[in-house]
Parts: sequence; C-alpha cells; structure tokens
Amino acid sequence: MRKFDRVRSRSLAATSRLCRLLGDVPGRRVLSAVFFATLLAGLSDRAFGDEGMWLFNNPPLKQFKEKYNFEPTPQWLEHLQKASVRFNSGGSGSFVSPNGLTITNHHVGLDTLQKMSSEKNNYVRDGFYAKSQKDEVKATDLELNVLMSIEDVTDRVQGAVKPEMSPDDANKARGNAIAQIEKESREKTGLRSDVVTLYQGGQYHLYRYKRYDDVRLVFAPEEQIAFYGGDPDNFEYPRYDLDIAIFRAYENGQPAKIEHYLKWNTKGPADGELTFVSGNPGRTDRQLAVSELADLRDDEVPYLLNMFYRRETYLHAWAARSFENKRRAEQQTRSVENNRKRYDGYLAGLVDPDVWRSIEDRQKKLTDTGETSAQFDKIKQAQEAIAKVLPVYNYFEIFRGPPEARYAAPRAFYSTLFQYARRVLRHGDEMTKPNGERFPEFRDSYKESLELELFSSQPIYDDFEIVKLTDSLTDMVTRFGADDSRVKQVLAGKSPVDRATELVKGTKLKDVAVRRQLYAGGASAVSAANDPMIELARMIDSPARDARKVYEAQDEIKQQAYAQIAKARFAAQGTNTYPDATFTLRLSYGTVRGYDEGGKKIPALTNTAGLYQRGAEHKNEPPFDIPKRWLDGKAKLNPNTPFNFVNDADIIGGNSGSPVVNKNNEFVGIIFDGNIQSLVLDCIFTDKQARAVSVDSAAISEALEKVYDAKPLLDELMSAK
Amino acid sequence: MRKFDRVRSRSLAATSRLCRLLGDVPGRRVLSAVFFATLLAGLSDRAFGDEGMWLFNNPPLKQFKEKYNFEPTPQWLEHLQKASVRFNSGGSGSFVSPNGLTITNHHVGLDTLQKMSSEKNNYVRDGFYAKSQKDEVKATDLELNVLMSIEDVTDRVQGAVKPEMSPDDANKARGNAIAQIEKESREKTGLRSDVVTLYQGGQYHLYRYKRYDDVRLVFAPEEQIAFYGGDPDNFEYPRYDLDIAIFRAYENGQPAKIEHYLKWNTKGPADGELTFVSGNPGRTDRQLAVSELADLRDDEVPYLLNMFYRRETYLHAWAARSFENKRRAEQQTRSVENNRKRYDGYLAGLVDPDVWRSIEDRQKKLTDTGETSAQFDKIKQAQEAIAKVLPVYNYFEIFRGPPEARYAAPRAFYSTLFQYARRVLRHGDEMTKPNGERFPEFRDSYKESLELELFSSQPIYDDFEIVKLTDSLTDMVTRFGADDSRVKQVLAGKSPVDRATELVKGTKLKDVAVRRQLYAGGASAVSAANDPMIELARMIDSPARDARKVYEAQDEIKQQAYAQIAKARFAAQGTNTYPDATFTLRLSYGTVRGYDEGGKKIPALTNTAGLYQRGAEHKNEPPFDIPKRWLDGKAKLNPNTPFNFVNDADIIGGNSGSPVVNKNNEFVGIIFDGNIQSLVLDCIFTDKQARAVSVDSAAISEALEKVYDAKPLLDELMSAK
Repeated sequence: MRKFDRVRSRSLAATSRLCRLLGDVPGRRVLSAVFFATLLAGLSDRAFGDEGMWLFNNPPLKQFKEKYNFEPTPQWLEHLQKASVRFNSGGSGSFVSPNGLTITNHHVGLDTLQKMSSEKNNYVRDGFYAKSQKDEVKATDLELNVLMSIEDVTDRVQGAVKPEMSPDDANKARGNAIAQIEKESREKTGLRSDVVTLYQGGQYHLYRYKRYDDVRLVFAPEEQIAFYGGDPDNFEYPRYDLDIAIFRAYENGQPAKIEHYLKWNTKGPADGELTFVSGNPGRTDRQLAVSELADLRDDEVPYLLNMFYRRETYLHAWAARSFENKRRAEQQTRSVENNRKRYDGYLAGLVDPDVWRSIEDRQKKLTDTGETSAQFDKIKQAQEAIAKVLPVYNYFEIFRGPPEARYAAPRAFYSTLFQYARRVLRHGDEMTKPNGERFPEFRDSYKESLELELFSSQPIYDDFEIVKLTDSLTDMVTRFGADDSRVKQVLAGKSPVDRATELVKGTKLKDVAVRRQLYAGGASAVSAANDPMIELARMIDSPARDARKVYEAQDEIKQQAYAQIAKARFAAQGTNTYPDATFTLRLSYGTVRGYDEGGKKIPALTNTAGLYQRGAEHKNEPPFDIPKRWLDGKAKLNPNTPFNFVNDADIIGGNSGSPVVNKNNEFVGIIFDGNIQSLVLDCIFTDKQARAVSVDSAAISEALEKVYDAKPLLDELMSAK
Repeated sequence: MRKFDRVRSRSLAATSRLCRLLGDVPGRRVLSAVFFATLLAGLSDRAFGDEGMWLFNNPPLKQFKEKYNFEPTPQWLEHLQKASVRFNSGGSGSFVSPNGLTITNHHVGLDTLQKMSSEKNNYVRDGFYAKSQKDEVKATDLELNVLMSIEDVTDRVQGAVKPEMSPDDANKARGNAIAQIEKESREKTGLRSDVVTLYQGGQYHLYRYKRYDDVRLVFAPEEQIAFYGGDPDNFEYPRYDLDIAIFRAYENGQPAKIEHYLKWNTKGPADGELTFVSGNPGRTDRQLAVSELADLRDDEVPYLLNMFYRRETYLHAWAARSFENKRRAEQQTRSVENNRKRYDGYLAGLVDPDVWRSIEDRQKKLTDTGETSAQFDKIKQAQEAIAKVLPVYNYFEIFRGPPEARYAAPRAFYSTLFQYARRVLRHGDEMTKPNGERFPEFRDSYKESLELELFSSQPIYDDFEIVKLTDSLTDMVTRFGADDSRVKQVLAGKSPVDRATELVKGTKLKDVAVRRQLYAGGASAVSAANDPMIELARMIDSPARDARKVYEAQDEIKQQAYAQIAKARFAAQGTNTYPDATFTLRLSYGTVRGYDEGGKKIPALTNTAGLYQRGAEHKNEPPFDIPKRWLDGKAKLNPNTPFNFVNDADIIGGNSGSPVVNKNNEFVGIIFDGNIQSLVLDCIFTDKQARAVSVDSAAISEALEKVYDAKPLLDELMSAK
C-alpha cells in the first residue's frame, strides 16, 4: 500500500545529478537476516537494469533502445503523460475512457470514500457501483491534476538569487520569482501552474496542470478484497488484492471529454513482458548528504515511528469499541499502519552497518575537492541549527508544501478542525501581503486547491476529533513537560481531555458556511468570530511562525549548498539522469518477472485460485476472510485468471494507482504496492528482489463482469479505442 | 485485567504513615471530560468508605465494627490469610479444597498456560479440563506462596544503619541485616523468608511463606470467554468474563493436604452485601513526594508508554502473520496491552492540573516543619542523580526485586534467552561473595525461586526471540545513537536483525541441561562455555552494574529521607493505617454495589443473558464472539445467573485472582479487574465510581457443570467444608 503520505517534515531542498550510489537499504525489522544478506550480495552485482523515475521531458530513450530496442514516438510519450492523472489525496491514476473515467487504487480513493460515507452508507466496507451516471456520487474535496506541459525555468529562478544575498533575502527572492512565474503562467493559460524543484535545486521546471475538482465515484469494491490480507500482507508478495476504485471527472456538470486515455486490455501482461509505469513517486533520498541521513536514522525516523506507534495503538483501541468507531477511524488507521511499516523497514536499513558504510563511501567520492566538502559542512551546520527549533516546528508548525499541505497536521494538534482554524486564521493574515511574500500555501497559484480543501463537505465527528486531539495534546505535554509555558497556555489550566472537548465542542468550524464566511471576511471577521479553535491557532501562531522562519532560513542554506554539489555532480557524471522523486509525474519501466526469496521461487503472477486458497489456509478469518460476494461468485470465476503481478520497475510511495501499460500504451494493470524488499528503493535501486506489485487488468475485467454485475462499466472501458 | 506486571523501574523506597491524600486521579485518555469532572467532584465529598489495603497483622477492626458491626475472630483472619495464595507470576489466588485445588484468574495463569502449550495443545485458545488427577498437567515454573506468619523486625533492620554511615555503607549494612534475618528464619523454619519494606521504610516485617512449586493445571476455559471483549472491554464495566483457572498444588508427588481453604458458595453475593478481598496488591504511589510524581508524569510513564506502544505494534503485526505466531505471542501481547491501557489512564490523571494541585497541596501540609521539607529536597536531589544513569539502568540493567525479578528484562534485551544468560553469568560471579553482599536475587533466601525459574521447561521459540530482540536492539540504537560506543560493541558490526539472529541461533541456553550445568559449574564453567548470549551479557555487565550502583546509592538516600518523613507522619496521624502496596498479602473490604456514570445507573451484577446480548450487538465478531461451547450450551443455562459483579473494595494490579469472601469466609467470587475509574487507585482511594470487578461464584459453578461437563470438579469444590 504505497500511497504517498508526506509525513516527513523536511521540505524539498538541495541538488545534484544522479550518482549511482550504494545507498541505504531499508528492510524490515522482523525479517530474518537472510534477506539482508541476500540484498547486500545483490548490491554489488546488480545490473541497474531498469532504474529510474524519469522526467517526461528527459526520458531514458537510450536505455529503451539499447536494452529493449524500443523507440517510443513523441506522440506515445505525450499520450501516456496526458492520460496520467495525479490524485492530490496522495496517489496516481489514469484516464481510461473518453468520458472521464479514471482508475486509481482503492487505498488512494480511501480518503475520499471515507469522507463520502456515513454510518448508513459505508462505501468503504461495502463498496459501491453506480448503475447509471445519475447515481455517481460526488467527492467532497478531491482534486485531480493532469500534466499538460513542462517548461524549464531554471535560469529565471536561479537568476533571482544573487551571491551577496543573505539566506533570508535569497529565500524571499526565489519565492518571489517562483510566485511570479506561476502567476504569469496561470493568468496566461488558466492552468494550475507549479514550479517544481528538481535535483535538489539543480533545476526548476514549470509544470502546468489541468485541474478537475468535480470528481464522482463510479465503482469501488468492498475494502476486504481491495486490501485483502490487511496490514499483515501489506508490502508482501504473493498477493490477491483488487485494490482499485473508479471515478469519473466532470466539467461543467457533464462527464469530462478526454482526448488522451488508455486503451483497456482485458488480458493483462505476460510473464517477461516489458511494461511502463507513469505516476507520481512521492519522495526518495538518493542524493542526501550523510549528515542528513544520519539525522534521519538517529532522530527523524525514530521520531516518526514513535508517533506512529502511539497513534496506531490508540486508533486500534478506539476503533475496536464499536463498528461505527471503526468506520470513522478506518482511513487514518490504514494510513498510520502503512507508514509505520514503511518507516520500520527504512530504519532497519539505516541501522545496518554495511549499508551505512556504502552511504559514507558514496559521499567520499564527491568530497575529493575541498569545495564540495565545504558544501557538505554547510548542510551539516544547517541541520544542527534546524535541530534546535525542530521540536517546536514539528509540534506547532510543520509545512510540507502544496499539494501535500492537506496532510500536514502539527503533532500537537492532530485534528481536522485545527487545520481549518489555522488556514482560516492565516489566510486572513497572509492575504494582506504581496503574493510572492506569502507562505506558498496562500499564494494565488494554490488558491483553488486551498478552497477545495477548506470548503470540503467531509463529515467531522466530534468524538473522533476529541480522541485524536486529546492524544496529541497529551503527547505535547510529555514532549515539553507539564510546566512548559507554551503547554500551560495551550491547555489553559485544563487536562488534555477537557481542553480537547472544550475546543471541539465549542468551535463553529464544523460548518462549511462558517468557514466560507470567515475566509471571505478576512482577518477582522476571523477575529470577531472569537472561535476557541481559531484562538488556539492564534495563541501558538507566533512561536510556530518563528520556528518556521528559522527552519526555512537554514533550509535555504542547504538548498544553495546542494545546488553547488549538484553542479559538481552534473560536471562529473553528465545530465542524462533522473532527479529524486518530488510527487510529480515520472516514467518508470520494467519487466514482469518473479524473484527468488530464501531459495524459493516467487512467481510473477498470482491467480484467482490462489485467493481462495489463501482464505482457506487462514480459516477465512480476518484479515484473510473472502468477502461474501466473492464466495458466492466463486463458481463463475476462472481460477486461472491472473490476479496480481510484479515487475521490476523503479517505484515508491505515491506511485499507487499508476497505470502499467504495454508497448502499445494499453492499460494492463495498476500499481498498488511494492514488496518488502522494495522499501530499499527510498535510497537505492535494486532489481534483485525489489518488485512493484500491480492488480492485473484481467482480474479487474472479470470481477467487474462476474462479481459486481458491472458489465456496463466494463463495456465502457472496453469501448475505449 | 489487573495482574501485577512490575514494569516500573524504581525499587521500593521511602516511608510514611497514610495520610488521606487528595492524590492523582488517573482516568483515561479517550474518556469524555464528564468522567474527570465527576471524579473530581467526588473527591471532595467522598466518604473514604472502604479505603485501605490492610496488613493482616494490623486489620481495620475499628472500621469493621463501626461501619458494619462486624467483629471477625482471630481464627477468621488466620483462616482467610492461610487460604490465600500468592501466584508469583504476578497475581493472587486461594485454596478451595482440602486437596490443593487453588483458583486464580485465567490471565494470572496465562503465563503458565502459554508455557505449557504447543502448536498442537493450545491450552490458551482451547481451554483444558483434567477429567482425572492423572490428566493434570504440570506447570513449567509456577511458584505459589502461602503467608504463614508475620514478624515485626523493624528495630533490628533500622538498628543496623548508623547515622554516621555513608549511603553505600548504610545500604550494605541494611542488606546484611535483612539477609541475616532471612537466612536465620529459613534455616529455623524451612520456610521461604522475605523481609518486606513497609511504609517506604517506616517498618520492616519478616514474612514467612510455604512454597509450592509442583503445581498442575486442572481446568481453564477457552481464552475467548476468560477475556471476553478483549482489550476494548479491559478496564470496563459491565463485563461478562469467566476469567478463572484452577490449579492443584502438589507435595511429594501427591495433592497437597490443605488445612485452610475457602468454602465454596454457589450463589455468589447479593447486591449490597459486605465482602472481603484477600490478595497481593502490587504497587501504589499514595505516599510519594511531588518530585517523584513529577518524574513519573514527565519521564517515567511516558517512557513506559513509548515502550508499550512500540511493543504492542510489533507484537500485533507479527501475531497477525499466522495462527502459530499469534499463539506464541499471546501472553506477552495481553500483558503489553494491559500495561499500555493502565499507564495511559495513569498519565491522563497525572497531567490533569486539578489533580496536580491536590498532589502539591498534600505535600505542603507535611512541609510546615523545615525538617520534613529538607527530606523532600533530599529526595528530589536523589531523583536528579538517578536521572543521569537512568537510560543505562533501564536499557542495560533494571532490577525490580524478587519475587518480581522474573519480569525484569532490560529494555535493550527483550529476550528470555538473555535473561537466562545474565542469571547464569551473575550467579557465577555473585556466589563468590558473602550472602549479605550479593545482589538480593542471588541471596540464599531466593535460591529455590531462582532455580525454579532458571530451570523452567518453558518452550523457547527462535523466531519469536529474534523478533523481540531485533526490536529491542533497534530501540537501543535509536535511544543512544548508532555511533555510541556501547551500541557498537553490542551490535558487533552487525545490523540488529543479524545480531539478534546470531545470538539466538548461537546460544546453547535453550537447553535446560546446559543451564543446569553452567549454574552448577560456576564462573569458570560459564566462561569456558563461550556462549554468544552469555558473552553479550558479560560485555555489558560492567556498565550495567555501575548504573545499578549509582541507582541504589541514591535510592538509599531516598529511603532514609522517606523514613524520616514517615516518622513525622506517624507522629501527626497515628499508626492505625495501611502502607503502600508491595505485592504482599493485604485485606480489603467493600460492598457489592453499582454506580452512576454520566447519569446512567450501572448495576452491580451482570448475568448470563447479558453475555449473549453483547455478542449479538457486536454481530458475534471478535473480540465479542461467543465461543462455540457457550453457543451450544446456551439453552441449558439460566439466563438470570449472575456473571460478574462489582464492589467498592480498595484493590489494584496484583489483586487479580483474589478471593472475594462473605462474612462467613465463603468464596463468593474472584477479582479479575477494576473499572476504568479505578485506575485512580494507584494514588488515591475513591468509592464514587471506582469498582473492583469479579467473576461470580454462581457463574463459575453453572459453567463448570453445564458448559464444561466438569461436574466432578464442581463436586470437589462443593464438598469442601
């Protein structure tokens, strides 16, 4: 389950060209040593076969040609690019019909399904199928982005920063330049326009997106088949998951007319076939300095795991009290479990001494010149300065950058209502400033996305909000101590549970109309509202902004240093390479193939018979129980239909929902996970065991027809030419 | 589920007479504010009705007489005392037949059931009933203690410490005096003899126990009815748990002949009836200094919770992978869940500002004299000195004192095999010293208990050991940093998973015969064994001992200070009171009665019909599924039979399994939990909502006959006169 939840606090920074590093090798705590031994053995003799998360404006044509004798036309690339859809809830997807049908993973759509559901209509548990267009249900706040063009604006952005500028001035100047470019582009084209930082600041590209914000649910299976095997099978293989959801994009109240969509292939790929993956990998650390990776290993990842451990524990405990609790907490529970497992694996790699030696060696190769070495020192010092404000930054501020800002909750205030309060408050304050000097999340280019999110009609449950906020306030007390002045101010003389209850019950922000009114009314209206949650946000606004200011000034220093390092890398290793992942569109490729694990051959494809067998092995007990529809439909299904498959494409969280296409640009599957060995890909590519896991288009086709009585939907998919 | 897992690291220290403090009020994070408001309101007007965990040699006769006009004879008290059984696995129990039958909770017996089980014979999941004596299964390492006599040895112990002694000398002198008293008593009587520190050092009593170490399983229900409702219902009420297990004590291969056993009452208690509880409450903090409670609040409890969160997470994740994993991890999972919930509740109380004010006020009353104030300062300074060594002490040493030492695993080495390695190593080293100068766990008085534990035939599973050790080594790395010299030494250049695998696979300590041989062979044999796990224990022995030395020297300072404070308390408030709990036998009492919760009346008794109703409400889904035997037997059962009940006796963890008796000293129920409101009892007594939860003897009687076809067992219980 590899949706991209941007949980790490560092913003994007720094630069460089790809060096083929022997990087960190995340594995998994509970794995036997065998895995690590095998993996490390693999590192030395690996082929770098199908490495890379490539830019669509710099595709690996040479590798295609040399290894596969495949020469895609510019039209082939443009078609795939424009049929690809970014789900701003944290994943990828693709258009699969001229009438706006778009397919993604169930777990990418889960956030939306959860928000659309109620105690009565539990789309997550029960699934959904709109028999006709009028039955399609509108999502509360889902935004889709389609990448229409890419323009290199490196010179203009880098040119705005003069060598003599202070870090703060440099940061402002760059921010202004970026805001200006985005604004001009948006005014000229009407498209969402984001300047994307690539190669840790080595390049800046302007991405223009067509936005869709009227998105309606067409089909979702029950979660039990979408996430078959649950947390135990997450990041494992073989698998049997129908992890899909199908939406339809609308424009002006009508199904969107789509020029570029993928042709549906009902057979899926063959074992050994070359395939392509187009999606939005979230974040990789393949170019980070040793000092940053040491911080990750010793502080940041343990910090995150500690947070996930506590959240997973109380989410489970609360969910277990009743069916309705479980339903309300479902999406957040899945997200926390997923992140916990992922960072567990990452940490296991980072604490492996062999891996660490490789990381150090990689940097040594770059520090032969005194100049590069000085840049690494600057990064280290900046990290040390950041460490001083990090507790306050993490607990009270946190900014992770659009379009992921929706996931950023300061650790002390794990509450949707707090998020609304902060947005409303800051919007009032920030809008009095010139566009370029505002926080990025309040710049004009982000306006529509902000409004979509702030005016969401998602349900807010007081009890769940109180549970989350009580825990995060308690977490804050234990982090800073009960006698800390900020803690006392935040708690206002009350216990965490009393304070959380007072805030949640007292705020008017549950009401969309109130949010709209305060947003429109600006600072004076926000102030007049005298809303307890907003006043809490105001109370900590100043320390939070202070911490962010220090954080971003130091980040600027790092960014400049990484840019210098990137130049040195480009000079030494050329520019025909790919940058670290940034949750923007990338092209990966790989072959459908199995792998060896502890001497056992893991085949590339599973089939329907395997699903039923796995259920039987586990006596049909959760999370391995076969849903009723599937038990009832068993006789109608071909046991040999391919269900899931793996290929060796280079993917990471955020690629969830990415279409897998064949050389004819036909949809043959959809990425939904990586195996446990692929957690390594955060920092290094290996194709020895690491695999991307997909749902086979054959399974989807058969299930729609025979399990879900959704023949009309399948017909619409198959009619796409 | 209130078994006593002694997870806190502080040893017993300090003194005082009971002052009726307005103490800390633990509640629960996810509770609504209503609970706290109600509870705090309750504190001011509460009656201190049936407060107290009384010593059997200082029972509350005055209160019995005044409130209930009840005057127990010395014989009544002696009978109850000697019919009470301490389960050294962490709970209480009682003799219920002249032939050694002893009843406790299922969750107290769980540790033993787990060790007796295998993949084939899963006594935990399936339950067990020995149809005849020859079918009774021997426990691997269970020790029962029956308190035979109490002697006040305060003068002798306190007299050994002279005012001019250094803390280290004072500690040694006291240790020697205690060891000498224990040794003399043991040689004279043949009984296990423990000097118990009461009133934080205000008094020392010599407890003599008859030991039983041949204990056999007679009956256990399936865990699903013993722990019906699972973690969600833990610490809740109303309840429907048959949380019992029945063992038989043997002597010389025959059922033990028991003089004092409780008469079985098949009706259970009536609503409003006076009842008595005789058991071993584990630990209370009702006399602690503010500085110690502040450390608990800001450091120790968050530290423990952080540990429980991570352990619960990975235990759940590992258990979910297969039925056999689940079985292997069952007991530890329950224990961790239980502690997490308990400390969660405790912390919620400690961070409540109203509660904190009460704690501060309580101390202010005692610090009117400069002398007492100086003692509190000494305690604070000692705590600060301890804090410096605490990370090393917690991760590498930890000693919690017999008989709880079996639960003490240093945080870095959460492994049964490591525990064996340390015992074997230290036994070799310590036995070269005079008895009084050894660590207490190696003194002669503890010899038999140590051997019982070390030579246990409990199964050791490599995979589970590796999982636990890998996690705790990873925990250690993130606590001290990968570059810490001790960490590097412990990991020996390997990743945590590799190192854990090497240690677990490489050690010979899985074999009881090897442990016996090394134990007998002493230091030279241990050294010659060259066992990797023992060598690990040796590697960290010196820093671990150093930390313990600092810890215990500072603890001595605290102990002397608390003794002074206790004197002041005795002087001001008299001596007719009870000391903080110390996992030794205490007498509590209380009335069977319900309570109000949020305006709702919670009745004192539940019944069998309620069990089936709760199952139906939860669609019979885990953990609310009714076991098959109970579904099948439903028609035979009287729906009105009382199932569980609550009374307002003053109990805490460790009281699990305590018999509840009526004025005729008849067994009418068995304590197995406290409600959520009773978590407050760690620090303060309240009877407004806090209740002890028991299984009704009527439910046990009916279940044995009609659900488990165990009429012969019921007959044996009922034949007891």
